[in-house]
Amino acid sequence: MKIQVVESVLKANDAVAAENRRRLTAAGVLAINVMGAPGSGKTLLLERTIPHLAPERCAVLVGDLQTTRDAERLGAVTPLVTQINTGTGCHLTAPQVTAGLDSLALDRVKYLFIENVGNMVCPAGFDLGEQRRVVLLSVTEGDDKVAKYPTLFQVADAILLTKVDLLGVLDGYRRERVYEDISRINSRAAVFEVAARTGQGMEPWLAWLRAQRSP
Amino acid sequence: MKIQVVESVLKANDAVAAENRRRLTAAGVLAINVMGAPGSGKTLLLERTIPHLAPERCAVLVGDLQTTRDAERLGAVTPLVTQINTGTGCHLTAPQVTAGLDSLALDRVKYLFIENVGNMVCPAGFDLGEQRRVVLLSVTEGDDKVAKYPTLFQVADAILLTKVDLLGVLDGYRRERVYEDISRINSRAAVFEVAARTGQGMEPWLAWLRAQRSP
Repeated sequence: MKIQVVESVLKANDAVAAENRRRLTAAGVLAINVMGAPGSGKTLLLERTIPHLAPERCAVLVGDLQTTRDAERLGAVTPLVTQINTGTGCHLTAPQVTAGLDSLALDRVKYLFIENVGNMVCPAGFDLGEQRRVVLLSVTEGDDKVAKYPTLFQVADAILLTKVDLLGVLDGYRRERVYEDISRINSRAAVFEVAARTGQGMEPWLAWLRAQRSP
Repeated sequence: MKIQVVESVLKANDAVAAENRRRLTAAGVLAINVMGAPGSGKTLLLERTIPHLAPERCAVLVGDLQTTRDAERLGAVTPLVTQINTGTGCHLTAPQVTAGLDSLALDRVKYLFIENVGNMVCPAGFDLGEQRRVVLLSVTEGDDKVAKYPTLFQVADAILLTKVDLLGVLDGYRRERVYEDISRINSRAAVFEVAARTGQGMEPWLAWLRAQRSP
């Protein structure tokens, strides 16, 4: 009984997600679901990524329980920002994204970044209609998180190790452990090491993003 | 309909939590639900806290989606460690804690630390039967998280700002912003600044813990 209800919620979400995807593809928009723990650096990555693309062609839907802080930050790099407050919801849902799409002039958009709620578990199960999934893992979270939260890393098209400028002050961080866990859990994901704050490693990530539009 | 189901799940959880609490109190155990984002430093805090208490009187229930890595680490400081794997579950539930209690000789325990799944949203809604709730927020997660994830901070008896030894390398971190948000959202919580790695600030936190057993 309980499982049936959960299944029907997921089925309803997936039907709306399929419609979102159809709509995005028809409009020529590449939508990227950006996921990671709170503080993994999602907003800063987008702040430092969008200016290198065509900023006037980039839009952002940003999910948070409360506040419009991320939308305010991202409003400085693109005018096409919509905040979605989930209240107590631990992830975005496809219908919330539909409402977000309604707020945007999609025909002007090439890249749509959907910044999910900071959470390493729940977003993995909810298709939003995106074409790509990107997962951030900051090195300050420790080197054991891929194996401990495999469901999120399994669905990733790209995995970004973020805040790598802090590696020098993190005694005992074993980068090779992260790579071993990734290769075991998701060998097809592209992996990047970036420090958005300093600009380190941004070029390969930007090249990957551009390549997703011209496969 | 959907809401009724969610309510009944929560009601069932709360009934089991109440029974856990009765059982813990009867056995003279202080149970502490330790919550925070992935990588906020929950396991390291417990590794560095337990040796200062009566380690043979401390027990840990540790929740993770997969792996027994945290239990292995904590096994070095106390023999009373039980790992609970939640699979895809984004938080511990009261029945999982009941099973954990069954695995422990409760009459030997003074402090039971329940390390929840790393998540800043979902654990807030699920009473486990604990008497105290502690929330960790690492400074590397940024200074905006209290306002963005208020539900977790609202239920905290104590809030620990962790990894404060890294403040020197975090340009622009506004500590006063965190305190302002905390005072607005939860003015009764005790707030501590700690760096478990260096030992900085551990004494006030330990004193608080000891005081909870002798109110």
